[in-house]
Amino acid sequence: MNLRSGWLRGTLFATALAFVTTAPVLAATDDTKATHFLLDNGMKVVVNPDHHAPIVTHMVLYMVGSADEPPGKSGIAYLIEHLMFKGTANHAAGELNRIVAEIGCLYHAFISHDYTALCERVAPSELGQMMSFEADRMRNLTLTDDAIDTERDVILEERRLTIDNDPQAVLDEEVVTALWQSQPYRIPVIGWMHEIEKLNRTDAVAFYDRYYRPNNAVLVVAGDVEPETVKALAEKTYGKVPRGPELPPRDRPSEPVQNTRRTLTLSDGRVSVPSFTRHWVVPSYRTAEAGEAEALDLLAQILGAGNRSRLYQQLVVKQGIAAEARAFFQGAMRDDSHFSISGSPRGDAKLADIGAAVDAEIARIARNGVTSDELERTKERYVRSVIFAQDSIANMYGLTLATGGNVKDVEEWPDRIRKVTADQVKAVAARYLTSDHSTTGYLLPKEN
Amino acid sequence: MNLRSGWLRGTLFATALAFVTTAPVLAATDDTKATHFLLDNGMKVVVNPDHHAPIVTHMVLYMVGSADEPPGKSGIAYLIEHLMFKGTANHAAGELNRIVAEIGCLYHAFISHDYTALCERVAPSELGQMMSFEADRMRNLTLTDDAIDTERDVILEERRLTIDNDPQAVLDEEVVTALWQSQPYRIPVIGWMHEIEKLNRTDAVAFYDRYYRPNNAVLVVAGDVEPETVKALAEKTYGKVPRGPELPPRDRPSEPVQNTRRTLTLSDGRVSVPSFTRHWVVPSYRTAEAGEAEALDLLAQILGAGNRSRLYQQLVVKQGIAAEARAFFQGAMRDDSHFSISGSPRGDAKLADIGAAVDAEIARIARNGVTSDELERTKERYVRSVIFAQDSIANMYGLTLATGGNVKDVEEWPDRIRKVTADQVKAVAARYLTSDHSTTGYLLPKEN
Repeated sequence: MNLRSGWLRGTLFATALAFVTTAPVLAATDDTKATHFLLDNGMKVVVNPDHHAPIVTHMVLYMVGSADEPPGKSGIAYLIEHLMFKGTANHAAGELNRIVAEIGCLYHAFISHDYTALCERVAPSELGQMMSFEADRMRNLTLTDDAIDTERDVILEERRLTIDNDPQAVLDEEVVTALWQSQPYRIPVIGWMHEIEKLNRTDAVAFYDRYYRPNNAVLVVAGDVEPETVKALAEKTYGKVPRGPELPPRDRPSEPVQNTRRTLTLSDGRVSVPSFTRHWVVPSYRTAEAGEAEALDLLAQILGAGNRSRLYQQLVVKQGIAAEARAFFQGAMRDDSHFSISGSPRGDAKLADIGAAVDAEIARIARNGVTSDELERTKERYVRSVIFAQDSIANMYGLTLATGGNVKDVEEWPDRIRKVTADQVKAVAARYLTSDHSTTGYLLPKEN
Repeated sequence: MNLRSGWLRGTLFATALAFVTTAPVLAATDDTKATHFLLDNGMKVVVNPDHHAPIVTHMVLYMVGSADEPPGKSGIAYLIEHLMFKGTANHAAGELNRIVAEIGCLYHAFISHDYTALCERVAPSELGQMMSFEADRMRNLTLTDDAIDTERDVILEERRLTIDNDPQAVLDEEVVTALWQSQPYRIPVIGWMHEIEKLNRTDAVAFYDRYYRPNNAVLVVAGDVEPETVKALAEKTYGKVPRGPELPPRDRPSEPVQNTRRTLTLSDGRVSVPSFTRHWVVPSYRTAEAGEAEALDLLAQILGAGNRSRLYQQLVVKQGIAAEARAFFQGAMRDDSHFSISGSPRGDAKLADIGAAVDAEIARIARNGVTSDELERTKERYVRSVIFAQDSIANMYGLTLATGGNVKDVEEWPDRIRKVTADQVKAVAARYLTSDHSTTGYLLPKEN
């Protein structure tokens, strides 16, 4: 996997980032609680000290993603993310890459529908230098026709390789597009081929100038550093970047009522193992009623996280119709989100058998709920699982703030998970996961 | 049916208007050929004299429809169309209605994704008065909060009655939304409930001021009148309306490649007769390669127009699995269009049986083509059928010009239909109507 630049595709990547946290959040002692403040130019800063290791994660998130693109310009957010790794007025292309390779142990970027994140992990002594580079590329990017033509071609090739040559990716893309009727999460983050091809310098400059501004950015620094140090360094670097124009409220088209059961089928000669994915529109942490997003998080765990989950036990172990079965909930989204289940058949089982078994397991929870044992065990395992996720603290603050949440939301999250009742889990299964309002993808070998 | 105001829903209404023409176009003698000219303010005028009856059709089309709405503002084009029947600075609400009721025999409006049309049929002596009223409401509409609140409530109620209370309409709406991945024809013309509810005066004024301008309008006058008379009257009325700002090219998001077979199912207790609809993305007259749109028009006739069509003969008469079966092609669209087949089962037949039989009939044409007899008979019947359509001449010029065509396209259309070869019909069936890239709606009674 190329760590230089990535985009969140489908549920797997994004879920891994959705709510991952580390020990300091859980141990809310005074010296580990996050400090947050605003720079004069409107840039939000969160600092979470953690002195376990002499390392610091530095992450800048722009509150702009593919769901903010103008109509017909899909891929422009990703093109800008790519261009962030090219030259600026002050640094030649490749200079930052070289320096991070020398001093750092992690250097990457990722983009989703809601945010664009740039991240480095370095020794504390290098933090100032990283800030200086990031503050520079916030406003001084080289956006020449040449630079844009080159990166656009790189992305077109990436799209050919990672989407258009992969039947599963082609299907996933159209399933997501059919799931959402209006909300722009329906548009692929990498962009549609015919729209990427037309992106030009005018589009890039307009998008960069509008969104890459300190008052549209969040800085998260986590690790072996004190808030005072971060503040002083941030003021010397980011603080010098002038505030941009105020952006209007981030009100993107929202989803109308869902009334139908939808399926999308792709039969392709390159498919050897069929697969099944079913999606539902559900609220995110930002749009949910109190407790619902937490209940959806736990429902995903109970239904389909690991070999002890209900779907695995029922479909793989007991019925033997599936080779795998998993559930995902994408909690950290600004607008409504989606809940997904995926699986692949074993032996002669048909995808329809898997669909029916999935619906039956959901119906069982919607009718009978989950057991208290199962719920408590899941809570503890889930909370523990996030402790060990790499760079989770910076991700958690960054993604939460970039999708409309605040520092308190992050800090209270483990407690909110612990408070979820079995009735709440039952209620969200019954309310949201009805097969009458689902969107299913079937990937099949080519019929003869 | 309420003729005061209508919007084109689904394929039936729109197809009826797609390419309907009258005798004068077919008999291209000098005194019946259309005259066309521009007013100084940029308004296009087409006059088609026809002295068979002492009546004149007066139609103004604005080159704006629901596909031109800003994201999140679905229904704003329809709201403006509704408001056109309310008061202006010079005429109280109801005045025009009353006058047309006294002097005219037809008075209506319709809106589609691409245009908004206002139309009256009156005695020639009243033409000047109609122009004066239309020119007035082009710029002087009363757009107060009160007027907007009232009409928005009327439309919300209309939506409840005609869409949300009708399972077929609910399904049709979601099928169209799933058919198009990007192109804004996916958005319902009437608007989504949650977006209509939020439309306000600011939205209405911005939309009206942008699009309701002489340089964004087409005037079509057909009937018992001479071009010189129309020109003089138009200059005295429309000619006094100042030109609006130039609009950018009408480049709306276009459709990416379609890769999947999609289905949408709605099971509802109110359904007694199940139904089947299958749609494909196909080019329109404007976007097609030469001859393809004409071939699609004839393919729709051969497959599914009337009791002699292939689908009717095969599904209804021979196999007895369907109570009805029809095909439609929507030719007069600015961007890519759609081809649809619909049917309902008879007896114990399942919707899947109808789907399979439909696919088999299409495959038969894609493989073996159509017969020369069948094609020639269809051409003559089709061309004749449009001769008798009411107000077809004004519609044909208006819709063609409003979707990017010109007067010559209208006049040459019958000849272009006559030139279509059997190979061309076979080719479009094979190229576009593949079930792997189709979107199907299934309406079913509620399962117990």
